[in-house]
Amino acid sequence: VVSVLDELVVPVVAAPMAGGISTPELVAAVSEAGGLGFLAAGYLTPDAVRDQLHATRALTGKPFGVNIFVPGDTAVDESAVDRYAARLTAEAHRYGVYLGDAIADDDGWAAKLDLVLAERVPVVSFTFGCPDADVLARLRENGSTVVVTVTSAAEARLAAAAGADVLCAQGQEAGGHRGTFDNPPAESSVAAELDPDADSAPRNDMGVLPLLREVTSAVSLPVVAAGGLGSGADVAAVLVAGAAAAQLGTLFLGCPEAGTKPAHRAALTEAAGTAVTRAFTGRPARGLVNRFLRQHSAVAPAAYPHVHHLTKSIRAAGDPEAMSLWAGQGHHFVRELPAADLVRQLAADARSALAAATRRML
Amino acid sequence: VVSVLDELVVPVVAAPMAGGISTPELVAAVSEAGGLGFLAAGYLTPDAVRDQLHATRALTGKPFGVNIFVPGDTAVDESAVDRYAARLTAEAHRYGVYLGDAIADDDGWAAKLDLVLAERVPVVSFTFGCPDADVLARLRENGSTVVVTVTSAAEARLAAAAGADVLCAQGQEAGGHRGTFDNPPAESSVAAELDPDADSAPRNDMGVLPLLREVTSAVSLPVVAAGGLGSGADVAAVLVAGAAAAQLGTLFLGCPEAGTKPAHRAALTEAAGTAVTRAFTGRPARGLVNRFLRQHSAVAPAAYPHVHHLTKSIRAAGDPEAMSLWAGQGHHFVRELPAADLVRQLAADARSALAAATRRML
Repeated sequence: VVSVLDELVVPVVAAPMAGGISTPELVAAVSEAGGLGFLAAGYLTPDAVRDQLHATRALTGKPFGVNIFVPGDTAVDESAVDRYAARLTAEAHRYGVYLGDAIADDDGWAAKLDLVLAERVPVVSFTFGCPDADVLARLRENGSTVVVTVTSAAEARLAAAAGADVLCAQGQEAGGHRGTFDNPPAESSVAAELDPDADSAPRNDMGVLPLLREVTSAVSLPVVAAGGLGSGADVAAVLVAGAAAAQLGTLFLGCPEAGTKPAHRAALTEAAGTAVTRAFTGRPARGLVNRFLRQHSAVAPAAYPHVHHLTKSIRAAGDPEAMSLWAGQGHHFVRELPAADLVRQLAADARSALAAATRRML
Repeated sequence: VVSVLDELVVPVVAAPMAGGISTPELVAAVSEAGGLGFLAAGYLTPDAVRDQLHATRALTGKPFGVNIFVPGDTAVDESAVDRYAARLTAEAHRYGVYLGDAIADDDGWAAKLDLVLAERVPVVSFTFGCPDADVLARLRENGSTVVVTVTSAAEARLAAAAGADVLCAQGQEAGGHRGTFDNPPAESSVAAELDPDADSAPRNDMGVLPLLREVTSAVSLPVVAAGGLGSGADVAAVLVAGAAAAQLGTLFLGCPEAGTKPAHRAALTEAAGTAVTRAFTGRPARGLVNRFLRQHSAVAPAAYPHVHHLTKSIRAAGDPEAMSLWAGQGHHFVRELPAADLVRQLAADARSALAAATRRML
C-alpha cells in the first residue's frame, strides 16, 4: 500500500475522470512520468473497461489505478424526479431530443469488481461510498492497493474500519462529483417555508486543507489530497499539510492525451467560475457555471443516477450552455501541455515553492 | 507595506473577531510574540474602539491592526425581512425577548475612519468591501498599511486599483462573516419554481488554495491567506502556495486572552461541523451548526445589517443552540493555549512541516 505511493517518483495522482476524459494514453503518460494515472470505470461497460485496461498495459509497465463507482441507496423521491423531468421538457424541446429514462442502475458494479480482481489492477479506488470489508479484503489479498474517496472524518473512519489502504480526501474545491457516501436532499427553502421547525442539514463543504487535517487526525492511513489544486506550489502545499500525495484532475483536462471535448476545453479558461450542482446528475458535482446550471440547480432533486440518465441527451446535444462541464476551482490554470510535461512541471514547481517558503520561515 | 508583513518574526496574523473576542490582551500577545494582532472595530462604538486602541498600545509597542466594516448597499427586500421577522417571533417567545429593530446603520463608518487616521494605527484592514481610493490614499499618506479582504480575483483587482497595500484572501473555510463585497440573494428554490427560466447565481465558494492562486495571479500585491487553517503545517502550506502570511481566527478562540464566551468555547471541539448561513445576520457567515442555523438558513434573507439587529436579543439569550457560534472549518483543533505560545507553536510546526515535505520531494 504505502509502497505504491512511496515509490512514486512524483507524488502526483491524476484523478479518474469518467465520461471519456481519462484515456489509456493519459493514464500511461502520467504513470510513465513518475506519477499515478487512473482509469475511470464509471459509466463504461465492463467490456469497455477491460479494453482500456489492456490498452493502458500496452503503453506502460508502471502501476496505475482504476476507479469504480459504489452503488448507493436508489430509493428516491419519485415525485420530485417527475417534477424535475416535467421542468426539463422545455430543455429537451430546445435541443430536439427526448429525455432519458430516469432509471437506477448500479453501473455494472459486480462485473467491474470481478474485472479488477481478474486483472489484478495495481490500485483500485472507489467513489460514492465504501464497499464492504470482505470486498476490500479480496482486493488486498489479490495484490491491489485499495483507495477509498472520503469527504469527512466520519467517512474516513468508516473506510479505515473496512480495511482501506489509502484514503483520498476530496475537498469541496474538486471538480466533478463530490465523493460523499450519501446523497441527502439539499437545503430546501420550499420545505423550510412549509415547516418552520424543519431541520435542513447544511451540505458538507469541507475545503481540502481542513479536511486533510480532520482525516489525518482521525485515521493513521496515508491520505491523498484532492480539490482545486492548480499548480506545483499547491501540490507542495498539501504535502506540507500532511498529504502523502496530491491528486489533480482539472489540470489534466488540458493535456492532449485527455478525451476532453473541445467545448469543455475552451470553457475552462473562459468561464468565470464553478459551482456545485445536482442539476445534471442528481448528485452534487462541481462544474463551470453555465445556463443549465444556473437555471436548474436550485430545484434539482437528490436522485442519482436517475437524473444522470434523464439529462443525458440534453448534455450530449453539444451546447456548452447545457453540458456538464466538470471542473475544479483551479480551472483558470489549465494549459495545453502533454501529461508527462505537466507531471514534471508540477514536481519542479513544488520543489521551488518549498525552497522559497523554507527561506521565508528561517 | 510589504515591510510590515516582512518584518513579522512569525508570518501569522490573528484575524479580527468582532463581538468582543479580539481583546487588547489577545492582540498585544500576538504582536509581542512576533505575529500581527488585529482589533475588531465592528459593532463597537467609536469610543470603545479608541479605548481598545489605547489599551492595546499600553500593552505592546509592536505593530498591530484595526479592522473596520465597510458599509454596503442597504436597499433590501423589506417584505422578505418582514417575513423573516414574523418567522422569528416564535424564537423571541421561546427566549422571552423582543426582536430587535431591523435597521440599517453604517456601524459608525466615518467616526471609525477618523479615529484610525487620528491614532495613526499601523495596519488598517477592511471587510465587506473596498473603500474609495481617496480613503485608502489618506490612510497610506498617514503611515498606515492598508489591507482589503477579498474573496475573488475580481474583488482583488478592485482593491488593487483602489490602492490597497496588502490583500487578505479569505477562503470559504473561514469562520465568521464572508468578506464578499456584495450580498446577493441566495439561490432560491422558491424563485426557481415560480420562474423556470430564472437565473439564480451560485454563491462564491472559493477555497483558500484556489483563491490564493487566483488572487496572486490577478494582482502583484502581497496576499495574506485565511480560511480553515488549523495548524502550523497549514500555515506553512499557504506560504508554500504563495501567501505572504497566514491569517487564523478560529485557533485563537481558545486562547485565555480571547473574549470567547464559555458556551462558544465548549462548542468548538464538540460540534460536528460548520456551515455558511445568513440566519443570524443577513450576510453569509460560517458558524458551528446548531438548531437555529439548521432551522432558518434556508429562508434567511440577504439583508445586512437588518437581520443582525433583528436577531440580537435571541443570540444574547444564552442558549448555544440559538447563538451565532462563529467558527472556521479548523474548529476541532482549537486548544486552550496562551496566544504567545500558540504563535510560537505555529511557527515551530510550520518549520517541521516544511522540512518533512522537502525530504519527501528530494
